Formats: sequence, structure tokens, C-alpha cells
Amino acid sequence: MTEDDRFAALEERLRRLEDERAIERMIAAYGPLVDAGDADATAALWAVDGGYQVAGWWSMHSRADVAAMVRSDDHQRLIEHGCCHFLGPAVVTVNGDDAIAVCDSALFVRADKGFRVYRAGANHFRLRRAGDGWEITERISRPLDGSRQARDLLAAGVAGRAPSAAEHDE
Amino acid sequence: MTEDDRFAALEERLRRLEDERAIERMIAAYGPLVDAGDADATAALWAVDGGYQVAGWWSMHSRADVAAMVRSDDHQRLIEHGCCHFLGPAVVTVNGDDAIAVCDSALFVRADKGFRVYRAGANHFRLRRAGDGWEITERISRPLDGSRQARDLLAAGVAGRAPSAAEHDE
Amino acid sequence: MTEDDRFAALEERLRRLEDERAIERMIAAYGPLVDAGDADATAALWAVDGGYQVAGWWSMHSRADVAAMVRSDDHQRLIEHGCCHFLGPAVVTVNGDDAIAVCDSALFVRADKGFRVYRAGANHFRLRRAGDGWEITERISRPLDGSRQARDLLAAGVAGRAPSAAEHDE
Repeated sequence: MTEDDRFAALEERLRRLEDERAIERMIAAYGPLVDAGDADATAALWAVDGGYQVAGWWSMHSRADVAAMVRSDDHQRLIEHGCCHFLGPAVVTVNGDDAIAVCDSALFVRADKGFRVYRAGANHFRLRRAGDGWEITERISRPLDGSRQARDLLAAGVAGRAPSAAEHDE
Repeated sequence: MTEDDRFAALEERLRRLEDERAIERMIAAYGPLVDAGDADATAALWAVDGGYQVAGWWSMHSRADVAAMVRSDDHQRLIEHGCCHFLGPAVVTVNGDDAIAVCDSALFVRADKGFRVYRAGANHFRLRRAGDGWEITERISRPLDGSRQARDLLAAGVAGRAPSAAEHDE
Repeated sequence: MTEDDRFAALEERLRRLEDERAIERMIAAYGPLVDAGDADATAALWAVDGGYQVAGWWSMHSRADVAAMVRSDDHQRLIEHGCCHFLGPAVVTVNGDDAIAVCDSALFVRADKGFRVYRAGANHFRLRRAGDGWEITERISRPLDGSRQARDLLAAGVAGRAPSAAEHDE
């Protein structure tokens, strides 16, 4: 191996780690940003034409839609009442300029004593490289209520695949 | 330092990061895989002769045992009802071809309104290098119910130690 | 670019990853250490003159104060009863020899059936380089009860900023 090859191999391995970590960081930042009510910073995680489907609640089709969700009365009431969108460590698969990630999430909402677990769910992300970083092109969140679709999100996410077609049929 | 030494030092540091991250990724994938009911992919995290002790529930002594647990009526009923095995970020200590990791876990089970926290526990992992990746050789999970043994799993895990002998005496 | 420049660039990128990961590891270790009741190892995450403010409960102003909290009757009773301080993945921003991190946390306490969510909160960390590693110089934890201060901790943390002055006015 020439010195140039050795440098190139190291740079490629390092780039892969940096890519994976940049995506993990974005996903780890989602909960704090949305609970802070920071609409612009939350929305900036998405591509301008990115999507966010929250099963049974809201279908967003752009970065502007994500910002509007954060600014909505529904969400503002929730964060003023007290809540925590708690996301687990993401499993990320990078493939060139595209990536897939998956993680669990729980939504804790303030209750009489302490908090209650309002939802526990699966989150599947598609991302693409954008400039020096990454953008979410599609996020799908489903409660883990025993449905085949939620379970498919998890299996597809770990395998680095898009969800099966059934995801889009409902 | 010669150029060869500089390359070797960089390669070793990078290898350490890659090792730690590969193990973190395996542990982060456990929850999604077991909640998806993907028996083969869950079991493939373990060595062929790996063990998994879930205190008060199940003692598994091979990769095949782990797959059988995922396929069991008990587990299938749970995931069809709705549940989330939520694992926290792992603390990993690599020592050559062996590694120790520890993390918290919570099990959320669907209830009348939202989910309830069925269990919160300590998880101690032993792993060994296998080909290009890693395999779990032993995982011990205990509920954080105040027992000395659960607390020992946590302290030993962060310190990169095997659990104390008492763990195996019961 | 000379070979020396190429080496230096790789070393700098690798150093950044190592720094971020060292801080993530410290934060991931907090829950297991404090639930194990390991006062010395928990306190060693802090600088000798480091602070830890838990809103509504305890203000600590040194590493020794943190150790005293872990050894306190309050905390010992809690871990003997059964609890899990569950911290989410940290978002870390390193700036030379200083760093900011933020994460969510949940405190699960053993109850009649399973566990209840006693608290869900925001955690903002300031750290500084110390020898080969890092030390916490200030940690602020607040429940996510709808207060402006808790939400400011989250937004400031992701942006890599100290909390706003209001944090210190109460």
C-alpha cells in the first residue's frame, strides 16, 4: 500500500465515523429542541422538502410543516404543561450520500405525581447528505401498539432498509 | 516518530473507536430487533455459545436459546400486545479482543392509557471479537429493585470488570 | 498539502471524535454509577470545584458535595428501594478545552407494579479538559414541568451555549 493509499483508507474510515455521528447527534438533538419549543432549530433538521409522519396525529410534508407543528397550539400546550420527548440511541446505516436510522422513543407527560408514559414508539429516518452535514428526508413514527407496521419500521431500520410498501398503503 | 509509526498510531486510535461503536450499535439494535420479533437478527448478536440471564425469568445458554425466547409464546404475546424494550446509551470498555459494556433498560408495556413501566433494569454485557465484528458471550439483566447484585452489575460494568462472583451463586 | 499537514488534519479530526466520545461516555456512566451507589466514581466525573444544581432538591458546589449526595440517607434509601436514573444520548459541543453537553433524563422508581416515572428532566453540562480526559464544571438539572428555565437549558445545550443569565437569578 502506498502512503497515499494509507491516507485515503484512514480518511474514508474517519469520514464514515463522522457521518454516523453527525446523524446520531441530529437525532439526539430532536427531543431537546422540540421540548424547548425551538421551531426553527427543530425544522432545520429536515430537508426543505422533507416529510414527518406521526401515525394517528400529523403528516408533515416540508421543513415549514415541521416548524408549524412545533408552533401549533397542540404542541405549545404540551410543552407548557410539561413533557419530555425522550429518544434512545439511534442505529445508523450510511450508504454513500444516503442513510437510514432507527430509534425508540418515549413521550413522558407531567401528571399528578411525576410523569406518565403517554407513548412509546418506533422511529424510522431516511436522510441524505447536504453540504457538510445531513438532512432528514423522511421520518415515520408509530406507537408500539402491536401493529405489524410499527414492527416493520424497527426491523427495516436496523437492516438499513426503507420500510416495506405497506407502510404507505394506509 | 517515523511515518510508519504515525500511521500505526492513527490506525490504532481509529480501530478503538470503531470497536467501541460497533458494540454500542449492537446494543442499540437489541431493543428494536426484539420488539420487531426478528428472532434470527436478535440471536445473531450473540455468540453460538453465548449466554443471556434475565433474572427471575429466563436463562439462555446459546444463540439458539435466544432465538427460541424471541419466538416463544410469552414474547410473541408481549409484542403483539405492544411493548418497547428501551435501552440507554452503553458504556463500553474494550480490552484487545474482549469487551465489557453496561447500560440501563426500561420495558414499557401498553396499558389502558398510554404505557406503563413494567421494569427498569441493569444490563451487563461481555463480548469478544469475532471476524470483523463482535459477539455477546454473556448478558445479565436484573431489575433495579434495590438488590446488591443489580447494583454490582452497574459498578462492574462501568469499571470494565466482570460481575463479582456472587452473581453466579444464586 | 504536505504529508505533515495530512497527518495533522487526521489527528485533529480523530481528537475531536475522541473528545466528544469521552464526554458522552462520562454522561452515560452517571446513571449506572449513581444507581450503584458508587460515591467516589460518581464524584470523580466532576472537577474538584465543580457544581451540580438539581432544581428543588440540592445544590452541590464541589466534587466532595457530589460524593456526599450519593452517600446521603435520601439517596441511599432511594437506591435500596429500587430506582433507575436513565439518561438519554448526550448532544456534545467541544470548543477547544471547553465543552457543553445536554441530555434528557428520567427517574424510574419502583412501585407496587413495576416502576413509576418520578421525574423527566433536562440536563445541561459544562465541562473542561483535565489531563487526558474531561471534568464536569457545572451540571444543572431541571424537571420538564413547563418552566421557561428548563426549556432554556435544552435550547442552550444543543446550541453549545451556557444557559441564559436567568438560570442563576432564582
